[in-house]
Amino acid sequence: MPRFRLDVEYDGSAFAGWQRQADQPSVQEAIERAIHAFCGETISIRGAGRTDAGVHALGQVAHLDLVKEWPADTVRDAINAHLGQAGDAVAILSAERIDGEFDARFSAVARHYLYRIVNRRARLAIDARRAWWVPKPLDADAMHEAAQTLIGRHDFTTFRSIHCQAKSPIRTLDRLDVTRTGDLIEIRASARSFLHNQVRSMTGTLKRVGDGAWSPADVSAALEAADRARCGPVAPPDGLYLTKVDYPAG
Amino acid sequence: MPRFRLDVEYDGSAFAGWQRQADQPSVQEAIERAIHAFCGETISIRGAGRTDAGVHALGQVAHLDLVKEWPADTVRDAINAHLGQAGDAVAILSAERIDGEFDARFSAVARHYLYRIVNRRARLAIDARRAWWVPKPLDADAMHEAAQTLIGRHDFTTFRSIHCQAKSPIRTLDRLDVTRTGDLIEIRASARSFLHNQVRSMTGTLKRVGDGAWSPADVSAALEAADRARCGPVAPPDGLYLTKVDYPAG
Repeated sequence: MPRFRLDVEYDGSAFAGWQRQADQPSVQEAIERAIHAFCGETISIRGAGRTDAGVHALGQVAHLDLVKEWPADTVRDAINAHLGQAGDAVAILSAERIDGEFDARFSAVARHYLYRIVNRRARLAIDARRAWWVPKPLDADAMHEAAQTLIGRHDFTTFRSIHCQAKSPIRTLDRLDVTRTGDLIEIRASARSFLHNQVRSMTGTLKRVGDGAWSPADVSAALEAADRARCGPVAPPDGLYLTKVDYPAG
Repeated sequence: MPRFRLDVEYDGSAFAGWQRQADQPSVQEAIERAIHAFCGETISIRGAGRTDAGVHALGQVAHLDLVKEWPADTVRDAINAHLGQAGDAVAILSAERIDGEFDARFSAVARHYLYRIVNRRARLAIDARRAWWVPKPLDADAMHEAAQTLIGRHDFTTFRSIHCQAKSPIRTLDRLDVTRTGDLIEIRASARSFLHNQVRSMTGTLKRVGDGAWSPADVSAALEAADRARCGPVAPPDGLYLTKVDYPAG
């Protein structure tokens, strides 16, 4: 059966997450429903990252197998048309005919996330549900300094949801940069893979450094403790975007 | 009575426009309701620009008079708190105690707008209702070239809504720049004041240049004709943002 790769953008506000659930709207289900409306096939798609409720994506990747050899652009346009009819905040950025060995989840070699904080006194209007509003002034430089203590291969138990199903808490964090442009603080995180809630857990902890409650050394100590109780409050899903997934060339 | 200046951000999607209307939600009414909830006063505020239904603002300016001499930060925080309770997509960025001569509308010496077009094949998800989706490829350089023919003092009848209440169709357009960054085309327009629907009318006409239907010379001819029938289709409100209003220095 011909396999297709989909690159997907979505606003996660109206969804209970990427993954199909029995009684709540999911991004996966919205796309599967659009595929069924397009070609009549009832299939299951697999995504590279199982984003949580309220988390967004600018570049989620999924794969699917269809019975018929459709032109890839037809797959993209037809799914988009049905997503539009359903009023779902999901867009298929591209569809590509791809080798049957490709697996959106298991072939991925890197995942990139962006976390957006709007740091200002006034509540959010344009960015409501698309960023984390933090009214107290944050020191982004201190957050960046603290973030660097998390880079590398570590036991990330402190920054892992108790619901995480990964076998090992060991991960290698390649990038965790904190930058400020005006009121906007952007945190960019890259790794081969992340534990459940890892980016939001790290972000919530870095926010404690930003507002002066913690020092960068406290973050380092929390990591070394490998104790979930040492994590700062987990940042809300609103600010988190899965931006890109990398695969081996050709 | 003490006068206050408010700088206001809003997502216009859920509103029938800035201006209070009898039976539809408006930004003005949302703020006036929050002011009433805060201090019990029933007042009318005046905005610099009467944005249409669905049009957004990053920097609308309004003024109001209160009976009591509240600290400006209290005015900002209290209105925001009540806007938040009401779930309105409106934020008071700042409140400032200002001279009684200041009039948000009549003291303004320049208004700045941004129009966002997302030019890509895929429908919008994150930017739904916050940009104009144009799937056909647009030539932003040709749009910019055509835009320059509109700069200066002209009779803008061609680019004016038939509902426009301004006495004169003569305006001086100071800036109309078209730039592209990836899929995003941004049009930035500045003038002392604009006619009703002027930015959206110019944008819709420039889009015709971008997709090859018109030449830059056609835009120039349409301007000179001073004939509303010569305007391209008016661009939708979704992409338009009132970004900034200028006043004479203190």
